[in-house]
Amino acid sequence: MQFSRFGEFLNSGSGILTLMEDIDQALCGSTQMHLLGGGNPARIPQVQKVFREAMTALMAQDDRFERLAGDYDGPQGDTRFIHNLAHLLNTHCGWNVTPANIVVTNGSQSSFFALFHLFAGDWASGDARRILLPLAPEYIGYADVGLGQQLFRAFRPAITLHGDREFKYHVDFDRLTVTPDIGAIAVSRPTNPTGNVLTDSEVAHLRQLAVENDIPLILDSAYGGPFPNIVFPEVTTFWDENTITCLSLSKLGLPGLRTGIIVAKEKIAKAIAAANAILSLAPGSVGPALITDMISDASILSLSNDVIRPYYRERAKQAVSWIEAAVGDYPCRIHTPEGAIFLWLWFEGLPITSEELYQRLKQRGVLVIAGEHFFPGLGETWDHRQECIRISYAQDPASVETGIGIIGEEIARAFDGANSKCA
Amino acid sequence: MQFSRFGEFLNSGSGILTLMEDIDQALCGSTQMHLLGGGNPARIPQVQKVFREAMTALMAQDDRFERLAGDYDGPQGDTRFIHNLAHLLNTHCGWNVTPANIVVTNGSQSSFFALFHLFAGDWASGDARRILLPLAPEYIGYADVGLGQQLFRAFRPAITLHGDREFKYHVDFDRLTVTPDIGAIAVSRPTNPTGNVLTDSEVAHLRQLAVENDIPLILDSAYGGPFPNIVFPEVTTFWDENTITCLSLSKLGLPGLRTGIIVAKEKIAKAIAAANAILSLAPGSVGPALITDMISDASILSLSNDVIRPYYRERAKQAVSWIEAAVGDYPCRIHTPEGAIFLWLWFEGLPITSEELYQRLKQRGVLVIAGEHFFPGLGETWDHRQECIRISYAQDPASVETGIGIIGEEIARAFDGANSKCA
Repeated sequence: MQFSRFGEFLNSGSGILTLMEDIDQALCGSTQMHLLGGGNPARIPQVQKVFREAMTALMAQDDRFERLAGDYDGPQGDTRFIHNLAHLLNTHCGWNVTPANIVVTNGSQSSFFALFHLFAGDWASGDARRILLPLAPEYIGYADVGLGQQLFRAFRPAITLHGDREFKYHVDFDRLTVTPDIGAIAVSRPTNPTGNVLTDSEVAHLRQLAVENDIPLILDSAYGGPFPNIVFPEVTTFWDENTITCLSLSKLGLPGLRTGIIVAKEKIAKAIAAANAILSLAPGSVGPALITDMISDASILSLSNDVIRPYYRERAKQAVSWIEAAVGDYPCRIHTPEGAIFLWLWFEGLPITSEELYQRLKQRGVLVIAGEHFFPGLGETWDHRQECIRISYAQDPASVETGIGIIGEEIARAFDGANSKCA
Repeated sequence: MQFSRFGEFLNSGSGILTLMEDIDQALCGSTQMHLLGGGNPARIPQVQKVFREAMTALMAQDDRFERLAGDYDGPQGDTRFIHNLAHLLNTHCGWNVTPANIVVTNGSQSSFFALFHLFAGDWASGDARRILLPLAPEYIGYADVGLGQQLFRAFRPAITLHGDREFKYHVDFDRLTVTPDIGAIAVSRPTNPTGNVLTDSEVAHLRQLAVENDIPLILDSAYGGPFPNIVFPEVTTFWDENTITCLSLSKLGLPGLRTGIIVAKEKIAKAIAAANAILSLAPGSVGPALITDMISDASILSLSNDVIRPYYRERAKQAVSWIEAAVGDYPCRIHTPEGAIFLWLWFEGLPITSEELYQRLKQRGVLVIAGEHFFPGLGETWDHRQECIRISYAQDPASVETGIGIIGEEIARAFDGANSKCA
């Protein structure tokens, strides 16, 4: 029995598969693991309570449960949910959308699979185009979307250092060039894996570049505004016909319901609905049904801004203090934590690769993600790629603290081991 | 703004998209439509009650709801569900599977997208292969999975006539040839759209052809056994390492939860899990969580065999009697209703195409599906393709009866119009 090229690629082991398997095995395994690896959101009791109440209310309301379970939504997603969301975005965020601009997907990964193949890959003209990632590191989940085809071109960031312990990436506009083989610009904001939040002026510059080149700007707002809005600095959100904004319910706390949302010009939204039909018939009904009333009364915004955002801001602060204590005098800088649920640690001069560090930590019961997998589309060699790891601070605080302590020990061992070999 | 070849294809309007949009617009629209078109399962009160109780029990059990909503499943699907299912298939169906043979997807359409691309399309050797559909008509949803690439080769069936009103398709093994460019054999059982159930001996023959050619046999059991088992004749189910069986929760009554299941040899199951990770990170959690206890105590089998199957058998009988009354002496044969939730009507010598009939019926408020869309991969011309329609008998009986009455009127009009033109 033989596989196609697609099958051979699937069989070769992808970064995102290993990541998801690691998370799952750790959740289901018998050994106590410290889960600083995956993207599972925190269990915030106040948020969990809201969703339980929403589900209870849904069950109590006539045959709503029967309809959500027993009917297919259309390929664009649930009509009432989409209407409510358009209204929310217009009245509370100042956007200017109609229901025809919105399409529901089975989560952000599905959104990106469709979007990236819409604007990169083979063209009827015979050319091939790519997605420009203006700032690497970028999200690991993008990497394999091309199914073996190189879909991305990424650029190294500019780096500014802040004090002894912090640094921040910026889009390096001096280096960035948009060539004719670019089909779209894409960026996550906040950035997964770094927690970086592109400034309004960086986004404005990217938007201008997109318009000048007649290509869309794709904003991955899975962690951003208007919900769950895990964004610590004051920044604005916007939408226009040349921008594609991708939202998700996962980081609100509902990853199991697999709900993504794309806001885009009508022609694009229709193409995504067609992709839904072909790839999965229709998106799932539970996520939209569960939060449709919270969209309708806008309580999803206060939940995001008054509960979810402050929770993660506090957790980030706490995790930073644990890291500072754990790494002592060893080289370690933390990317300025501006959002998302991760810290991005840079061990400058690390004598082992980030993958080797990941393996050593896994042996010690700590799951992180090796930084080197977050550079899809960056061709050049750059030591920095192997010197970073992503850690999530979203899981049980005691476990995160223990995990960070072990990271400190392994960092010491890595640097000291190298030194003793040199002696 | 330009689209890739993939985007241009999505933009061109696909059969399955039109179908899903029609269903959705009819469900949400203000006009009363008679929904004989889509694949929505029936609302069977006894079944709905079971699912409501399962959800209520789930909500009442500690933090099960919080875990299903708040954690990602692994890319293979929920571990406990998979273990329970392997046990059920072994003890109650006599299969011989391990949990490593099972993978959950976001519904059967997602299953087929991954499977067909695994065994057809481009090969590393430079060849291209196709999926053999041994009996056309076959499921409309397969047609666009190739995204514009021709993934299928289909064969005309043999036809036997039964009395004045019935006919049945058979695999025409005299015609069927498995050439070296075939990557897999695929067949739905019961067949969507016809309600045909391949006999055990037909399946055995196909299984033998697959083994001889070292390619897998893909059995689409979305309507078949072991659940929901909407199969009226006595037939057996089986599984072996060379067979890929695809199950679904949709026709049990849960299409909104988007849950498909693939049972295949381990290497294939792993490749599908990788496709899950890349295309959607992980499958949704709600479907597996909702039915895991019903899998565990095997009550899903009694629900299928004692409630769902008899319900549809009765509905099919009723619909056949309405059709016989509605079409009077006009040419109309019904494919022997052996399963699924459809009747397949053949109007031999129909003076208009099935697409034209579909349009006329839509104008009259009756949604059906034109038969000509159910022949993916059949190159040859054949009048029969334009002479059939698929109707669902799953929706509200009064509406189905009215719809069938209108079909009778439009059939009379089509035949009489042609006759009067000849006069």
